Amino acid sequence: MKKLINSPETFVKDSLAGMALAHPELIKVHYDPNFVYRADAPVSGKVAVISGGGSGHEPMHGGFVGMGMLTAACPGEVFTSPTPDQMLESAKMVNSGAGVLYIVKNYTGDVMNFEMAAELARAEGIKVQNILIDDDVAVKDSLYTAGRRGVGNTVLAEKIVGAAAEKGYGLDKLADLCRQVNINGRSMGMAITSCTVPAKGSPTFELGEEEIEVGIGIHGEPGIERMGMKPADEITEMMALSIIEDDAYTRTVREWDDAKGEWIEKELVDPPFKAGDKVIAFVNSMAGTPVAELYVVYRKLAEICEKKGLTIVRNLVGPYITSLEMQGMSITLLKVDEEMLGLWDAPVNTPGLRWGV
Amino acid sequence: MKKLINSPETFVKDSLAGMALAHPELIKVHYDPNFVYRADAPVSGKVAVISGGGSGHEPMHGGFVGMGMLTAACPGEVFTSPTPDQMLESAKMVNSGAGVLYIVKNYTGDVMNFEMAAELARAEGIKVQNILIDDDVAVKDSLYTAGRRGVGNTVLAEKIVGAAAEKGYGLDKLADLCRQVNINGRSMGMAITSCTVPAKGSPTFELGEEEIEVGIGIHGEPGIERMGMKPADEITEMMALSIIEDDAYTRTVREWDDAKGEWIEKELVDPPFKAGDKVIAFVNSMAGTPVAELYVVYRKLAEICEKKGLTIVRNLVGPYITSLEMQGMSITLLKVDEEMLGLWDAPVNTPGLRWGV
Repeated sequence: MKKLINSPETFVKDSLAGMALAHPELIKVHYDPNFVYRADAPVSGKVAVISGGGSGHEPMHGGFVGMGMLTAACPGEVFTSPTPDQMLESAKMVNSGAGVLYIVKNYTGDVMNFEMAAELARAEGIKVQNILIDDDVAVKDSLYTAGRRGVGNTVLAEKIVGAAAEKGYGLDKLADLCRQVNINGRSMGMAITSCTVPAKGSPTFELGEEEIEVGIGIHGEPGIERMGMKPADEITEMMALSIIEDDAYTRTVREWDDAKGEWIEKELVDPPFKAGDKVIAFVNSMAGTPVAELYVVYRKLAEICEKKGLTIVRNLVGPYITSLEMQGMSITLLKVDEEMLGLWDAPVNTPGLRWGV
Repeated sequence: MKKLINSPETFVKDSLAGMALAHPELIKVHYDPNFVYRADAPVSGKVAVISGGGSGHEPMHGGFVGMGMLTAACPGEVFTSPTPDQMLESAKMVNSGAGVLYIVKNYTGDVMNFEMAAELARAEGIKVQNILIDDDVAVKDSLYTAGRRGVGNTVLAEKIVGAAAEKGYGLDKLADLCRQVNINGRSMGMAITSCTVPAKGSPTFELGEEEIEVGIGIHGEPGIERMGMKPADEITEMMALSIIEDDAYTRTVREWDDAKGEWIEKELVDPPFKAGDKVIAFVNSMAGTPVAELYVVYRKLAEICEKKGLTIVRNLVGPYITSLEMQGMSITLLKVDEEMLGLWDAPVNTPGLRWGV
């Protein structure tokens, strides 16, 4: 195994330490339990937005901590859910009194641990809401997931919801916004190569010399289909159409009802995209694919969106939700209204995303 | 060969087209000859800063075109020098009358073609200066290069010089600044994996399963030493010390003397780093290495700089001068004074680098 690490055991901490050294004005790192938090937290009067998940997807989530995005992030070991104590301790550290919104990618371990953390935090008097992101149209149910996986739309949700928290949205309004961003966004990924979890030391899966996998998850979970390498335009079209032509998606999620004081089941429906929609288009590298290839994908994606009557009003092209050193990419489309667009454009200052400052 | 391209023949143009579609407010692309230029060029009263080189190093250079950085960039085919007509036509397109500074990485083809372009541009009445970047301490003379190669410091030079042009520096002052940035900066790279030039279809070089190459160039040119994989801290220390302890480097470069109307030879000396120096530290991914590993490197680099009495006043961590899909990284240290630091902090708005706007 060839990686720029010192050992599998120290990888996550060494990387966090380096990020803290590189961006002391933006973030601090707490160890044991591990979490990254805004250097100026708690931010008076503002709801804290916290996310987290397995490491290996950087800059998500720790690289998105800072003004206008996350207040804290909890990194697990590589491809492993963080634990409730990380989520609880980070909430205690950054809660200003206005409450905490947990943004949770739909993986069974993450969902369970964030629910447990929310209960522990409530027991300590902190108001908490958990909102799920489940945007991956590739598969229904998967390794590690019941329902759709949470992938690229998480980045967009963290930006938009983080900007809203910065503007002073209250917890309930913020939860509504985050739920709506989840409802409005869909993604799909593909892999050109596998990736190696340091503690394991061998590739997560095997791909042939001329083989790719479409519909793959960010942990190398199986996708829809293995196929021979194809021109970028063909792959892009296949994925973009899967996203755009996806039917209404109905599922039940658990959210906390503060009035009732219990978890309730809520039915969500993602309506399909339709001509006239305005979207943010996000072409993401799984890390190993260079930006020059992402632009080849973006070119075709823009053409398809135009044909389908979708107007790309903003875009994001680069490695933002990665899968260790995997080569491959994902596409996310998020339907936005004027409120979301304004929040997208708002200033952000994090190690991984910065504009307006 | 597995890449997100349509064909080796269309790769560069497809990628440029995608970048233009993604960033119409920042850049435009001219085809045949190919160059990327600021959407608002020529910028009245400002010197145009133009760079270029083989494709495959994105976001450098095309991704650095925009307010506060490059006015235009000329992409060659992958790992192939652009041609004088690209450099000439871009100069004609973006020259405001204040002249053109060509920033040239020290590769024989680039140097020759930019000199030829400068002569053609002068024949058309455009004032031009060529400044060389030759910061790679790994090897003296190399495949494609007499003297040291131009690598990571090019990114820093383009940012600083671009900001100075934006501020209204005249051509001679801008050339002096760029020369000084070159004199103040040193780099070294290493590769974990090889990379594949699309038109060739097979890896540029071979590395064993547990082998790395230290001192490698951005086209996979041989480095100093092949060795077994080592802990990141050890690799970082080896490279950082090679940079910091590098002796005074003396060489002769060719620059244009406007008064004499001829190319003159100029002796440049890079003094060694010394305790008390302020530096910008740049940890760059060759593309395939994820940012989480770059932070592992940064952690050790910060420790070494501190031990050597160098104060890191700013840093840049990410994939900015890449080598197709190669895994690996490079380290650049640039000694800065207050002027350079202010220019580094100035607003920049390009597809690849953005802050302050």
